[in-house]
Amino acid sequence: MINWNNFDTLSSVSTLEKAEKVDLVKVMSGESGAERVKKYSVPMAGNLTYNYAAKEVDDTILEGLKKLAEEAQLTEKYEALYNGEVINTGEKRMVLHQLTRGQLGEKVEADGVDKREFYKKEQQRIADFANKVHSGEIANAKGEKFTTVVQIGIGGSDLGPRAMYLALENWAKKNGTFKMEAKFISNVDPDDASAVLNSVDVAHSIFILVSKSGTTLETLTNQSFVMDALKKAGLDPAKHMIAVTSETSPLAHSDDFIEAFYMDDYIGGRYSSTSGVGGAVLSLAFGPEVFAQFLDGAAAEDKLATNKDLLKNPAMLDALIGVYERNVLGYPSTAILPYSQALSRFPAHLQQLDMESNGKSVNRFGEPINYVTGPVIFGEPGTNGQHSFYQLLHQGTDIVPLQFIGFKNSQLHNDVTIENSTSQQKLCANVAAQIVAFACGKADDNKNKNFEGGRPSSIIIGEELTPAALGALLAHFENKVMFQGFVWNINSFDQEGVQLGKVLAKKVLAHETEGALAVYSQLLNI
Amino acid sequence: MINWNNFDTLSSVSTLEKAEKVDLVKVMSGESGAERVKKYSVPMAGNLTYNYAAKEVDDTILEGLKKLAEEAQLTEKYEALYNGEVINTGEKRMVLHQLTRGQLGEKVEADGVDKREFYKKEQQRIADFANKVHSGEIANAKGEKFTTVVQIGIGGSDLGPRAMYLALENWAKKNGTFKMEAKFISNVDPDDASAVLNSVDVAHSIFILVSKSGTTLETLTNQSFVMDALKKAGLDPAKHMIAVTSETSPLAHSDDFIEAFYMDDYIGGRYSSTSGVGGAVLSLAFGPEVFAQFLDGAAAEDKLATNKDLLKNPAMLDALIGVYERNVLGYPSTAILPYSQALSRFPAHLQQLDMESNGKSVNRFGEPINYVTGPVIFGEPGTNGQHSFYQLLHQGTDIVPLQFIGFKNSQLHNDVTIENSTSQQKLCANVAAQIVAFACGKADDNKNKNFEGGRPSSIIIGEELTPAALGALLAHFENKVMFQGFVWNINSFDQEGVQLGKVLAKKVLAHETEGALAVYSQLLNI
Repeated sequence: MINWNNFDTLSSVSTLEKAEKVDLVKVMSGESGAERVKKYSVPMAGNLTYNYAAKEVDDTILEGLKKLAEEAQLTEKYEALYNGEVINTGEKRMVLHQLTRGQLGEKVEADGVDKREFYKKEQQRIADFANKVHSGEIANAKGEKFTTVVQIGIGGSDLGPRAMYLALENWAKKNGTFKMEAKFISNVDPDDASAVLNSVDVAHSIFILVSKSGTTLETLTNQSFVMDALKKAGLDPAKHMIAVTSETSPLAHSDDFIEAFYMDDYIGGRYSSTSGVGGAVLSLAFGPEVFAQFLDGAAAEDKLATNKDLLKNPAMLDALIGVYERNVLGYPSTAILPYSQALSRFPAHLQQLDMESNGKSVNRFGEPINYVTGPVIFGEPGTNGQHSFYQLLHQGTDIVPLQFIGFKNSQLHNDVTIENSTSQQKLCANVAAQIVAFACGKADDNKNKNFEGGRPSSIIIGEELTPAALGALLAHFENKVMFQGFVWNINSFDQEGVQLGKVLAKKVLAHETEGALAVYSQLLNI
Repeated sequence: MINWNNFDTLSSVSTLEKAEKVDLVKVMSGESGAERVKKYSVPMAGNLTYNYAAKEVDDTILEGLKKLAEEAQLTEKYEALYNGEVINTGEKRMVLHQLTRGQLGEKVEADGVDKREFYKKEQQRIADFANKVHSGEIANAKGEKFTTVVQIGIGGSDLGPRAMYLALENWAKKNGTFKMEAKFISNVDPDDASAVLNSVDVAHSIFILVSKSGTTLETLTNQSFVMDALKKAGLDPAKHMIAVTSETSPLAHSDDFIEAFYMDDYIGGRYSSTSGVGGAVLSLAFGPEVFAQFLDGAAAEDKLATNKDLLKNPAMLDALIGVYERNVLGYPSTAILPYSQALSRFPAHLQQLDMESNGKSVNRFGEPINYVTGPVIFGEPGTNGQHSFYQLLHQGTDIVPLQFIGFKNSQLHNDVTIENSTSQQKLCANVAAQIVAFACGKADDNKNKNFEGGRPSSIIIGEELTPAALGALLAHFENKVMFQGFVWNINSFDQEGVQLGKVLAKKVLAHETEGALAVYSQLLNI
C-alpha cells in the first residue's frame, strides 16, 4: 500500500531538521577528510562513481535520509511507476521512459500493446533505417548518400538530443563510428533556421521533424522554413524528411515524410532522449550500435535505482541529499559543473529536466503545498567556469551546492605534456582542487583573500565519457529528479506552467489584446 | 567629497524597506497596465529602450530608489571612476574599460601615457593589421590568405568575445562585412583544442593568444597544443600567431608572434570585450569598421549612464531595481532571457560579468558585510527556454526576476509567413505574452493550472541587433553591475575568489597533497 503524503507531514523530516548540522570545514580537513572521500562513495553504471564526501552529511544525517526514503516509500513508488501505474496524475498517464531501455518489472500494456515491445520495435525500425541511410540504400533523388542530419525540435526534442550528440561526437570520431554530422534547429527566431540552413548542403541533408503532439508552433514553423528552402533548391521535401511523433499526431502516416517513427504520451519530452526523439538523430549520427550502448548504460543505472539500500542507490542518495540541502539547509539553487568540454550542453539539458519537472507549487493531487520544491539549476563546463562565475560560488553571500562531473581520460586521447603534466591531468587536478577549496576554504587575515569554505559539492567520476557512461549519467539525473518529486509529493511529469504563455501569444498574433499586452505588442511591432 | 558607506548604513534603504510593496497582478492589469508600459520606459543608445513596467516598482518606490542613488552618490562614483580614481581597491588599480570606447571625463594618465590615446592607438594598430590580413598583405608562408581566426583564451578572454562574435556573425554575413570565420579554444580539456583544430584548416588559420598576465595555465597549455599541431603540419607557429596581452607580460615583445597588441591592468578580463581582447578577433572576423560601430554604441550608453536623473539613466535604474529585488524583496537569482538566437551566449557572458564582479562578502575596504550581494545569474534564449525551465519560473515556489531582450527585426531578414504571421512576429508575440503571463498570472480553479503571477520582469527592446545595439547592450550591463557594486560598497573589479583553487591545483600537479585532496587525486588518476 503506497501512501502519497506531503513532505511536511513526514516525521523523518522533523528528525532531520533537528539533527546537528555538519561542519564541512572540520570534517573534510586532515585524516577525517581522507576517510570520508574513501567511504562516502557509491558505484554507478558505466564505470562511474558517485562520491558525496564533500556534502554536508554524516552517518547521523544519512540515517535520517534513510528513514525519509523509507517513510516516503521511494523504491515502492519507483516500482509502481515502472510497473505502469498512472504516476502522471495531472495528465492521467503512465510514465514509461525507463521502458525505452529495459524491462524493470512486469509487462506494461497500453492501447492494447506491450509497451516494451513497442519501444523495442521502434528502436529496431530506426536502426534499420539508419543502416540503410549509411549504406546508401536510402539516398537523395540523385541516389547520392545523405551526409548530414538536421533535427527540428524544441525543448525536450532539442536539449537532450543535442547535449547527447555533443557528448559523443568526439568519441565517435575517435572510435570510427562517426557516420553523419548532426545540426539542430529549435528557436522560432528565423535567424536560427536560416543560419543552420546556410551551414549545410541541403541536397545531402536529411531532416528529422520531432514533435510528439505534431502541433508545436516552433517546430511546425521551422518545418515550413526548411520545406521552403528545399523547394527553392529544387528538391522534394518529402524525400528529405522523417518524423518522430506519436501515432495519433497529425504528422503520423503522412506523405510528407520518407518514414515516421513513433513514441507516445507516456514519455515526457524532457525524458525522451532514450526514445526515438534521441534515437533517430543519434543512430544516424553514430550508428545504431552506439545508441544501443547508450541505452544499456541507462538501463543499468535504472536497475541500480531499484536498490532499497540508500547507500547503494546513487540516484536516490543524490536526490535525498538535494532535498536536505533545499528544504533543511535552505539553498535555493544548484550548479552542474562537468569537467569535460563534451558535456558543454549537459547542464542546459539538466536545467530543463529538473526545473520543468520539479518547479511546482501544488502536490500531485493539485493541492497547494507549503514547502519549497525544485531549485534553480545552472552550469557551465570547467575549467571555463573557474574563470567566470566561481568567484560568487567561493566568496558570494549565498551558498550554492555543486555537482561536479569528471573523467580520468579524454575522449580523443590527444594530449600534450607541459611542465610534467598532460592537459587531462591539469583538468582533473583542477576539479579535485575545487572540491577541497569549496569544502575547506582557507583562512586569511586579509578578509578579501579569506575563504570561509563550508560549500558543499559531490562529484561523479568516470573512466571516460563513453556511450554507456553517458547513458548512466543521463538516467542517474532522470531518476534523481523522479525521487525528489516523490519526496515532495509533486507530479514531476506534467508542465502546466508552459500553457498560459502559449495562450497569450496566440492572442497577440490574432490581435486580440488589450491593456499591457496591447502596448507591448505595439512596442514590438507585431 | 565621496563617502563609501556600507549599504546597511544608508537611511534610504530603511525607507525602501518600509514602503508598501507593489501588487504586480493589480497594477499590470487593465488600463493601469497599459499606462505603466507606456510610462515606465527609458531610451537607451543603439535604438534600444529599457522598459520596466512589469517590475515591482511604482512612483513611491522609484522615489525611494532616487534617494538611494543620491545617498550612495552613484553618478559621483562613476565620475570618479572614469576620471581615473583607484576604484579597484583590492588590487589598487584604476578601472578604465570605458576609456577603450570614449573619453567621458578628464584626461587619464598612467605609466606616463594618456590612456585614452593608448587604447585608441592599439585599436588603430589592430585595424591596420586586420586590413592587411583581409587584403592578403599579411598571409601565410605560401602567400595565401588567412581564412579563419582562432582565439585562445579563457574567462573574460573567451566568453565576451565569443558571445559578441555569435551575436554579429549573421548580421555581418547579411551586410557584406563578414571577413573570416572565428573559432574559440578555452578549456584545458584536451578534447576542446583537438576538436577545434580538427575543424579548421590550420594552414590558413591565424591564432590569437589572449592573456593579460601571460601566465594563464589553460591558455599557455593550449598555446603549446596549437604550436604542436602547426609544427606537425609543417608550419611555423610564429607565422600563425598573434598575442593580446599587457606590455609587462612574458608574451609581450616576443618572436613567437607575428604581432602583439596591448591592454593593461586597468581593464578586468570580464570588462575587456571593447579592448583588444574583443577587438582583434572581431576586427579580423567582421572588419575594423564593424568593431568601431560596436564601440560607438557602447560609448553612447556609457554617456547615458552619467545622467543624474535616475529615470533617464537606464543602467542605474536597472541596477537599483535589481538591488531592491535582491535586498528588500529577497530574490536570490535573476534570469537573462534574450529572444534572439544570436544572443545564445550572451547570458553566459553576463553570468561571468555579474557573478565574478559582485559575488563578494567583504566591502571595498576588505571588511565583512551583513547583507546579500550579487545574485546567481543564468539564462538561455527564448523561445527555447519556454519549452524548458520556464515551468519553474511560472509555477515554482521561488520567484526569479527576469530580464528579457527582444528585437523587432531579425538579422538575416529571411522569414516565412505561416498562419498570417512571420517567425519574427511569433518570436515577438511570445516575449510580449510571457511578460504579461508572469506579471498578471491567471486564476484557475484547478490549482495545477493556476498562475499566481506577481513575477517581475523588464525588457530591453531594440530595432535590430546591430553592432551599435550590441555595444549599447554590453555597456548597459557593465554599468549596471558597476552601479550595483557601488550601492553594496564592494569592489566589483577584483576576483580573489578564484585564487585558492589555482593554488591547490598546482599542489595536486606537484603531488604535494594530503588528506582529502590526496584521495581525490588518486580517484582521478592524477
